[in-house]
Amino acid sequence: MPGHGNVVIAQSGGPTAVINRTLAGAINELKALRMGARILGAKHGIDGIMDKDFLQLDSVSGPLMRKVAEMPGAALGSTRRKPSPEDCEKILRVFWDMNVRYFFYIGGDDTARALSIIAKSAEEAKQPLVCIHIPKTIDNDLVKPHDHAPGWGSAARFVALSSMGLDEDNRSMRGIYINVFMGKNAGFLTASTALARERDDEGPHLLYLPEVEFKEEKFIQDIQTVYDELGRVHVAVSEGISVKDESGGLTPLIQVMQQGHGSDNFGGVNLSGSGALGDYLGRLVKKSVKPKEGHHVRVRSDTMGYLQRSFPFVVSEVDAEEAELVGRMGVQYAFDEEKNASIALIRKDSDHYECETIAASLELVGSGKRMMPKEFISSDGTDITQEFVDYATPIIGSMPRRARLL
Amino acid sequence: MPGHGNVVIAQSGGPTAVINRTLAGAINELKALRMGARILGAKHGIDGIMDKDFLQLDSVSGPLMRKVAEMPGAALGSTRRKPSPEDCEKILRVFWDMNVRYFFYIGGDDTARALSIIAKSAEEAKQPLVCIHIPKTIDNDLVKPHDHAPGWGSAARFVALSSMGLDEDNRSMRGIYINVFMGKNAGFLTASTALARERDDEGPHLLYLPEVEFKEEKFIQDIQTVYDELGRVHVAVSEGISVKDESGGLTPLIQVMQQGHGSDNFGGVNLSGSGALGDYLGRLVKKSVKPKEGHHVRVRSDTMGYLQRSFPFVVSEVDAEEAELVGRMGVQYAFDEEKNASIALIRKDSDHYECETIAASLELVGSGKRMMPKEFISSDGTDITQEFVDYATPIIGSMPRRARLL
Repeated sequence: MPGHGNVVIAQSGGPTAVINRTLAGAINELKALRMGARILGAKHGIDGIMDKDFLQLDSVSGPLMRKVAEMPGAALGSTRRKPSPEDCEKILRVFWDMNVRYFFYIGGDDTARALSIIAKSAEEAKQPLVCIHIPKTIDNDLVKPHDHAPGWGSAARFVALSSMGLDEDNRSMRGIYINVFMGKNAGFLTASTALARERDDEGPHLLYLPEVEFKEEKFIQDIQTVYDELGRVHVAVSEGISVKDESGGLTPLIQVMQQGHGSDNFGGVNLSGSGALGDYLGRLVKKSVKPKEGHHVRVRSDTMGYLQRSFPFVVSEVDAEEAELVGRMGVQYAFDEEKNASIALIRKDSDHYECETIAASLELVGSGKRMMPKEFISSDGTDITQEFVDYATPIIGSMPRRARLL
Repeated sequence: MPGHGNVVIAQSGGPTAVINRTLAGAINELKALRMGARILGAKHGIDGIMDKDFLQLDSVSGPLMRKVAEMPGAALGSTRRKPSPEDCEKILRVFWDMNVRYFFYIGGDDTARALSIIAKSAEEAKQPLVCIHIPKTIDNDLVKPHDHAPGWGSAARFVALSSMGLDEDNRSMRGIYINVFMGKNAGFLTASTALARERDDEGPHLLYLPEVEFKEEKFIQDIQTVYDELGRVHVAVSEGISVKDESGGLTPLIQVMQQGHGSDNFGGVNLSGSGALGDYLGRLVKKSVKPKEGHHVRVRSDTMGYLQRSFPFVVSEVDAEEAELVGRMGVQYAFDEEKNASIALIRKDSDHYECETIAASLELVGSGKRMMPKEFISSDGTDITQEFVDYATPIIGSMPRRARLL
């Protein structure tokens, strides 16, 4: 029965354009239940819990919250902190002191892992605490049963629209254009750049995904082939593209490039916030691709950077609605079941697209990352399949059609 | 009197989000005059003229052209070619053979310069040719009497909105975020990133413009000050920031970094299509800024890249209308006056914002670049003034307000 304890909500990991819709969904549902409990927003995730730095979310007005829901960035602040045993002790002590019995943590797989660690500590300490992971990620790399995660749809829509504009720019200027997208482990976001193509000569013409072994020689050859045919090439590259290492496994190319550089708190290499990979690939192409007779090859590389998760007001409506849904359903599940869970979107088996939520194992979702399935990647590894288009389109929304003179 | 000869239209230089509105405006006006002449679109600027590679623009339907007008990229294709004496000879020969008497060239100051060279050749050859420069540039660096140029307003709106989202992302994640924007000589675009600030703690907190001598020591100090106060810093940097050289003048920092690298056809250094400057500044900050006790400083740098001139469907309505206006007025002026000109937007002296066009000297506009005037830059050199806000806002449109919890 709800009401026996207070509630903490927090956000963690990289923000998305719709992460605050999830926050709004959860708060609205909590208010609708009128359970009389305090709704506390921890600032910057578990950092704010440990510092007892909370916002009173019950007193935030509806109109303000509706506007906040439209804003990119994590409105409560975020963190990438992975809780140590001492952190867990501090968190549980604060929860105990403030009679917090429900903890909603909005984030990706690292967040689920952090929450799972806290849940285990609470269990060991026999402290009653319901831990609910509410999903968000632009990478879309949450394991099954998650069909997809809120945040990806809007980022995917943004990069698809961006790539459409950039492709028209490349058609104007000709030459070779390389653009690097986020996605350390999974190629879903880079794959989405291809969703605004219609005619055969429209780019991005080549995609390089973390799921497919990256070979420099093939990369050059692929580009040369398109360049010879069209006089221009538009290439979308995931930051996580990987080369075969000595053990026969795959290692991110940027990790090979940056040996000895910083890593994030969850052991992942920090691939973002640098143009190094794009610049490296640009130099490689400049050196290796043969121009048409009498021409020089114009080579440019960009790195999409933080804008792909934070551009305001260009979102997928379906994604935004689903972001709100997981927030509401997380609250319902917590009070109905009083159990830990990761709230997962799954597709209903129906003739039109429709999603519902189920409760997945928190531990499972925190323990792994999902990659693009084989059937989403073309046999030569540099394109998407119709299966991916069918999977992605309902989430991302239909794309505007291009109009061209050339 | 119109009708005594055919018309060529072409586009040149980096595209903008509204350059095709200008094309549509010119075509509509030409069609409205029903002069019976052929309207030829040269593909990829003067390259297409020399290759006799033309599109029949009279036969493009109105509905298609209205859609093309909404698309980023140069719909006819672009070029950065600066015509040599041999090129001019070829161009004039093609014009003569095809009875072309009017040449409309849409582009920036390099385009005006190219056109001015062709105009001079025609004059020397006593070949009748009216050369009209129709302005576009995201850099806004056309000299007076141009008040501003179409294309800047939309790019400025896009970077202002982007910077608003990126600032909320930085508020979520904390640390130091550096973003590099286009603008080799003029800081107008970088300055525009500050237009979506409202409260004192909102970023970008520091702007670095090509007009102000860049000193690494001051840069670090500025960042340290904001970091100590807010725990985060959002920095917008123009790709053209310059350091004092031996002669006492200013040299672009990236030119110092890239000694011996490629230059564009107009003698400008190619600063775009690389993350090198952002990465350099990021490393500098990481090395030099002192963290708060017990913390490490998260430093990330992005380079905005080609998206700032090519993102589709997010434009300033005023900019889009003015882009169409200069196209129409270029055609009117050509037939009314039968003289070469650069069509310039100037502000009417009225109590509300309103623009009209005048004919400026083609040679003058092609001979120089404009920088931000002193009164647009704060006295310490790292911010904009109210004068700049007053200048820019009517062109860029009002900004959405942020909604925040923190």
